[in-house]
Amino acid sequence: MKSVENTPVPLFRDIVGPEFVRTDEPTRTAYGLDALKRASGRPADVVILPANTREVAAVMRVCHETRTAIVPRGGGTGYTGGAVPTHGGVVLSLERMNRILDIDELNLLAVVEPHVVTGDLQNAVERVGLFYPPDPQSLRTSVIGGNVAECAGGPRAFKYGTTKQYVLGLEAVLPTGEIIETGGKVVKNVVGYDLTHLLVGSEGTLAILTKIILRLIPKPPVQATLRATFPTVRDAVNAVTGLIRARVIPAALELIDGDSLNAVATYLNTRSLAPEGTGALLLLEVDGLAEQVAAEAERVDRACREAGATEVLRADNESERQELWRVRREISPSLKVITPLKFNHDIVVPKGRIPELFELVDRLRSRYRLRIPCFGHVGDGNIHVNIMVQPHDEDEIRRAHEAEGELFRGAVALEGSISGEHGIGFAKAPYLTLELSTEEIALMKRVKAAFDPHGILNPGKIFPAGD
Amino acid sequence: MKSVENTPVPLFRDIVGPEFVRTDEPTRTAYGLDALKRASGRPADVVILPANTREVAAVMRVCHETRTAIVPRGGGTGYTGGAVPTHGGVVLSLERMNRILDIDELNLLAVVEPHVVTGDLQNAVERVGLFYPPDPQSLRTSVIGGNVAECAGGPRAFKYGTTKQYVLGLEAVLPTGEIIETGGKVVKNVVGYDLTHLLVGSEGTLAILTKIILRLIPKPPVQATLRATFPTVRDAVNAVTGLIRARVIPAALELIDGDSLNAVATYLNTRSLAPEGTGALLLLEVDGLAEQVAAEAERVDRACREAGATEVLRADNESERQELWRVRREISPSLKVITPLKFNHDIVVPKGRIPELFELVDRLRSRYRLRIPCFGHVGDGNIHVNIMVQPHDEDEIRRAHEAEGELFRGAVALEGSISGEHGIGFAKAPYLTLELSTEEIALMKRVKAAFDPHGILNPGKIFPAGD
Repeated sequence: MKSVENTPVPLFRDIVGPEFVRTDEPTRTAYGLDALKRASGRPADVVILPANTREVAAVMRVCHETRTAIVPRGGGTGYTGGAVPTHGGVVLSLERMNRILDIDELNLLAVVEPHVVTGDLQNAVERVGLFYPPDPQSLRTSVIGGNVAECAGGPRAFKYGTTKQYVLGLEAVLPTGEIIETGGKVVKNVVGYDLTHLLVGSEGTLAILTKIILRLIPKPPVQATLRATFPTVRDAVNAVTGLIRARVIPAALELIDGDSLNAVATYLNTRSLAPEGTGALLLLEVDGLAEQVAAEAERVDRACREAGATEVLRADNESERQELWRVRREISPSLKVITPLKFNHDIVVPKGRIPELFELVDRLRSRYRLRIPCFGHVGDGNIHVNIMVQPHDEDEIRRAHEAEGELFRGAVALEGSISGEHGIGFAKAPYLTLELSTEEIALMKRVKAAFDPHGILNPGKIFPAGD
Repeated sequence: MKSVENTPVPLFRDIVGPEFVRTDEPTRTAYGLDALKRASGRPADVVILPANTREVAAVMRVCHETRTAIVPRGGGTGYTGGAVPTHGGVVLSLERMNRILDIDELNLLAVVEPHVVTGDLQNAVERVGLFYPPDPQSLRTSVIGGNVAECAGGPRAFKYGTTKQYVLGLEAVLPTGEIIETGGKVVKNVVGYDLTHLLVGSEGTLAILTKIILRLIPKPPVQATLRATFPTVRDAVNAVTGLIRARVIPAALELIDGDSLNAVATYLNTRSLAPEGTGALLLLEVDGLAEQVAAEAERVDRACREAGATEVLRADNESERQELWRVRREISPSLKVITPLKFNHDIVVPKGRIPELFELVDRLRSRYRLRIPCFGHVGDGNIHVNIMVQPHDEDEIRRAHEAEGELFRGAVALEGSISGEHGIGFAKAPYLTLELSTEEIALMKRVKAAFDPHGILNPGKIFPAGD
């Protein structure tokens, strides 16, 4: 798929109106970045802001007929460049399609346009006692369409599952410009292939989502938050193992390692984040009815102490809860203080193998002389491994890339995956062959061609270049 | 795709051993039926019983090279003929691949071969305090491979979801004979397209499943079962609405209509199933920790009484619980007493529209002079509509088919689906166009071709003939 230099801008102006077709340099640049401010070197020729599905379909037909690359874009909060254009052409921003169309309390579902901010939807459904669990860290700025395209996760995934567990149906525009509907308003539907869940996580390479039907659940009325500190990561994982043996499934189970704690302490200019010698901190949250929460919090407390916790704190009100979560929220800004650049990887392994993953990271730290703070969702084995580099230190960058390759191979060897949340985009595309076989990649490409015969939709993503 | 008369039996004998290649008439007939004893008129030429994935792949390669139709078969408990051969060729029974390979308590997953009986897996995981929720009525005889291929549901789907919510990864043999692995042992994995969930519910038309990794959850320690009777279906649905308003999600929520109750009463030769004038019976089950169950059972009781229940019973022990469930279990044998033949449809509509579905069924009853007992999973809107016919009454069969078409169109008009659990197979293939657009069907066929270029795998299923 080659980009077309002569993008048919006049046709696009006719479809969406001239004010919603932008070709100025600042706009094209701004719509060419991801959350890490990463660009491809080949921004879009034009940014289009359609108002509705009909306009999306009309733009797509023009792109199909003129073989113009087109990249759908939501909140631009991705970490792997999934919404970053790499072949010029069109960036199609869904930002004007941002309405919550329905919150159906009886049927426990919401119907939304793709650009509804995830946190806004959560607030809206919680006001009527309902709950939309997926909670990516970016929820104040990321949008449902992007969450669905990337199958966003978050801390609550261990108990509640990721975005895919909540998508009931989609309206989508195919690369050929046809509008399809998949799934619907029912939880059960086995008519034909499950295209809904094929589109979830397809990173905008198969279709552009224009409407999303989401399953909601009742909001758990009560929650309890605990924080426990341990000498080592292995002790913390033992506490988690103990919890699972006691058959308790916390709603959140966040692990923060010593390197990350040190970064936050430096950033906040404090020493009092955790007891001296803390190698791992667990944040645990249980939710449900009051009696259940009380019983489960008690079991969490016990499992942590039995695993050798040096301290277990429990929040008794919302402000204490926010204080316990503060360390988690401050990690990202803190890491920016260590170095302005990080290679941020969302490795996932079966949770029983987390200690082995941390042993691997320790080896990478010493072998490649790198700072690698780690934190993440220990319940589902999804650990954010942050390789910190100075942007102008070429030797460090080289070492970081070597460590990265070793990290990915190690995750796969531990029966895990190179991405649990962020997707492949173009940033991880060169590593796809570490995890998928030649036959599996060939099959995925045939599926891609079944949707997009000319390869116009979000080219350069997922699959290794030149492959 | 035409069947090949000269099926390459000697090659198959070399692969699996002569004793596992059957060409005798009784075997070919027995492996050509579904749960309704429905055959296609064109049974397989040969039944093959492979021992492992390697043999499945080798058989598939021969079929691919010789353009021989091949139909995978699990427990044979399907209702739409998904495992019934329609083009001769091979039936590949997975019955020798029936081992539970691992129950991994720490990582909350099980690894199984496809022919593990669903109920056996449930018993095995419950012995260690874990839970595999999907519970199709056929769970004593249906197998996990078939459950995954059809995306089986069951009463617990409202709270716990259907089979797709529990499939983490698959090993599968493509129609070209290549072995792929999809997903894995982690809940989060966003590397490439989600082929796992594309294969779930694909009715054995895209690949043959040879290994399945299933997510498990902790077994709810306590459950409470209630039975409530109502004058009308609308009253019962009002009770359900009241429950959802109170944000209670029962683990089971079964509705049985007056026609079904009468059938069971006749069958059991009793009058005492429910109070005189009962038009609808609800079976409700809540589960969880003891305190939560007590609180929720209380709310269920209240919601039923407020909606006008004539009687609410609660089981206090397991034998009382089995007694309450008895009426549900006896429906299927009872219906066979009304007539030996039923057109059994698993309509699904958003639950708020269930009263409209029952109004439609009432119209069909009187317009076409048919007995149509209905029961099902009211929580997720999945209602089994049974059109009863005398096998030799041609006029009644004609009326039943007319009612069937009207029922399907009505379900789609109510934002529902023509199949919530049973799939399309060949029995519902003529009706696919009622629910899916030409573009959607064309896209699904392109996906099918991406997996199966010669159309050898389970031909004649899902898609309308000649289309």
